[in-house]
Amino acid sequence: MTATKFVLPESDIPTTWYNVVPDLPKGLPPMLHPGTREPITPADLAPLFASGMIEQEFSTEREIDIPGPVLDIYRQWRPSPLVRARRLEQALDTPARIYFKYEGVSPAGSHKPNTAVPQAYYSKLDGVRRLTTETGAGQWGSSLSMACAYFGLDCEVFMVRVSYDQKPYRRGLMETFGASVTASPSDRTEAGRAALAADPHSTGSLGLAISEAVEAAMTSGGAARYALGSVLNLVLMHQTIIGQEALLQLAMADDYPDIVVGAAGGGSNFAGLALPFLRRQLGGGPTVRFVAAEPSSCPSLTKGSYDYDFGDTAGLTPLAKMHTLGHDFHPPAIHAGGLRYHGMAPIVSALREVDLIEARAVPQTACFEAGVLFARSEGIVPAPESTHAVRVAVDEAIHCRETGESKAIVFSLSGHGHFDMQAYIDYFAGKLTD
Amino acid sequence: MTATKFVLPESDIPTTWYNVVPDLPKGLPPMLHPGTREPITPADLAPLFASGMIEQEFSTEREIDIPGPVLDIYRQWRPSPLVRARRLEQALDTPARIYFKYEGVSPAGSHKPNTAVPQAYYSKLDGVRRLTTETGAGQWGSSLSMACAYFGLDCEVFMVRVSYDQKPYRRGLMETFGASVTASPSDRTEAGRAALAADPHSTGSLGLAISEAVEAAMTSGGAARYALGSVLNLVLMHQTIIGQEALLQLAMADDYPDIVVGAAGGGSNFAGLALPFLRRQLGGGPTVRFVAAEPSSCPSLTKGSYDYDFGDTAGLTPLAKMHTLGHDFHPPAIHAGGLRYHGMAPIVSALREVDLIEARAVPQTACFEAGVLFARSEGIVPAPESTHAVRVAVDEAIHCRETGESKAIVFSLSGHGHFDMQAYIDYFAGKLTD
Repeated sequence: MTATKFVLPESDIPTTWYNVVPDLPKGLPPMLHPGTREPITPADLAPLFASGMIEQEFSTEREIDIPGPVLDIYRQWRPSPLVRARRLEQALDTPARIYFKYEGVSPAGSHKPNTAVPQAYYSKLDGVRRLTTETGAGQWGSSLSMACAYFGLDCEVFMVRVSYDQKPYRRGLMETFGASVTASPSDRTEAGRAALAADPHSTGSLGLAISEAVEAAMTSGGAARYALGSVLNLVLMHQTIIGQEALLQLAMADDYPDIVVGAAGGGSNFAGLALPFLRRQLGGGPTVRFVAAEPSSCPSLTKGSYDYDFGDTAGLTPLAKMHTLGHDFHPPAIHAGGLRYHGMAPIVSALREVDLIEARAVPQTACFEAGVLFARSEGIVPAPESTHAVRVAVDEAIHCRETGESKAIVFSLSGHGHFDMQAYIDYFAGKLTD
Repeated sequence: MTATKFVLPESDIPTTWYNVVPDLPKGLPPMLHPGTREPITPADLAPLFASGMIEQEFSTEREIDIPGPVLDIYRQWRPSPLVRARRLEQALDTPARIYFKYEGVSPAGSHKPNTAVPQAYYSKLDGVRRLTTETGAGQWGSSLSMACAYFGLDCEVFMVRVSYDQKPYRRGLMETFGASVTASPSDRTEAGRAALAADPHSTGSLGLAISEAVEAAMTSGGAARYALGSVLNLVLMHQTIIGQEALLQLAMADDYPDIVVGAAGGGSNFAGLALPFLRRQLGGGPTVRFVAAEPSSCPSLTKGSYDYDFGDTAGLTPLAKMHTLGHDFHPPAIHAGGLRYHGMAPIVSALREVDLIEARAVPQTACFEAGVLFARSEGIVPAPESTHAVRVAVDEAIHCRETGESKAIVFSLSGHGHFDMQAYIDYFAGKLTD
């Protein structure tokens, strides 16, 4: 029998996260305080994040234990499957071996619970009663809502207005998990009121929703903390469970990647798959081409400058050295809402600067074309964000057909598109532009 | 470590389906021809179904091999996980051990691909170019669309008008898989035109959509065959892969069910889980309580008569001996569209008649209440159909709390509710009635 799906027993689930920071060739520039522009300290972040999270954000340990209660929840769906995309290979008539690591099996439908669960756990440990956050496409908000339900925390989600109006079912999902969802900009925060004063019909942005969620936590008198779904070192670290599992699964397949691909908005999904393979490479293992796929309409890694910038629109967050289009950049309303962010994770940015990773910008119609091909071949309808990885993987496989090379291409299918069918409907109706 | 999820390696996937027909204590009354009322023959079904399907429908073999190309596709998501619902147990403070077999991991989101894939395969073998079918809630239509994409067949889905209008994303999913979707009643068939003549604003019914799909196949001049998502012997047989896997997984857990629960509309999901355990019982193994959960608004098994009836509204299908509310029964518009069917599978009906299984009718608000509890405990939002099984499993677990008994309850979580969030939104808004 030729295996299709590589499934690890629950007992083989990785029990540590991998922190790449000590392995970065040039280290990582510190984040700066938004007021003083001095390097921030753990104490600076205390009003914002749970203490366990702050410790991890500053950690230079290579391995950090995954707490038991977090592992218990991971085990409800992890290890996630690694699947050999044999039908896609046939459809492309390529000699390439294509594998995808499928994170859509999580109850929230994406990789985001990998970090939502520990963030809720560490917040619970601190006695916090409520977590605030923002969500664009809704994958992150759904995941944090679910994680808060697990730990008995209230969850307050600021949802970008355009998504709030267009995706009532995403909102319904968060509310089913018990979260309260507010359209952003809202009148609940100064940042929101200022945005509404400037434009009463504002459809919002991820950067603005971050400002609101941060403000809501900072002004909660200690009852609330904030949670963030990407960009941070600790978030990328939590996501390394993806790549660690994939390493074991590729060993089952007796294979090893030539190319690793992931979609990159904030960068955590791409990094989660790539970093454990990069670790091997830095330790003398095989060299891999790591390709971050981003939307051509929001090309932080391919077109942004590598500079200090805020994470949010209002300038409430620390400044991070990263590839950025500017914190006031307002990306066009593409369907991959999870990739509409002006900045890129500092770790991913630092790796790009030393050429350990590549970046490629792809237009959305080409991504949906690849997404439909994938759905008809493998059955799974990818999230619009994930179609960016599919597109690059397909292009690499087509290149293999042209050159006759049989390369192993491993990509991250970060989530399913069940809450994004309007995007596919618009694609079929010819309504999408690049 | 205490395991949560019981995962079989791909190599342990069952390679045969179990056919319960030779083990039925009183056998199975034959289906009758709609014209002559004589027992139907395989030849009678030839214009309707693929020959491989007809052979299986009449088979009295206990084990039937799963064809290799079908197994290859099953392996993309099977074996599906069996999960110990520890958080639900804690939430209920019950000594019961609750397990759920989760079919929502299939790309179409339910158990339906287990039979859609072989039906498409056998049709392809016969050189058929197109499959016609009906869909209510959309789970079956999505699954057959996916299966047809795999085998390069066209797929024509008659979707009950009320679902067609209320669920554009289900339709979008089917179209993403390449299917053509028509609202039923339509002007494409005599049955549809008659219904529209009687009521131009008809919202349709599953029975009527079946009539349309059957007629479309019968009048295709051989280009098309029909596919059916439940009720038939062969469909129940295809679904036994669920219970066969669960048997192996419970052995991994060193446990065995006292109670097996499944939601029952046509009966295939319930039967798919239950029959392999029933086989053990009939062979001298432990006695299990098998409970079919049906909606109190469409109570074929608890309130219907055990009689010969048509499978569709127009009387085009053969008559089957089954529990039925009458083929002209028009069920209220509950959200569990997949359970809105007037009849019950002949096999399930026959088992009910000899008291080998129980049936319980549950109202929809109580089902959604259980569904929300499940979502907040286990992360997965159940399909409205599946909440019926959750409700009965929860009630049994509460009963265990009251009696202090530690029973093992195994239920089938037939699918996720990602395309049914409006039902949850309506539930929270207090709009549902029983």
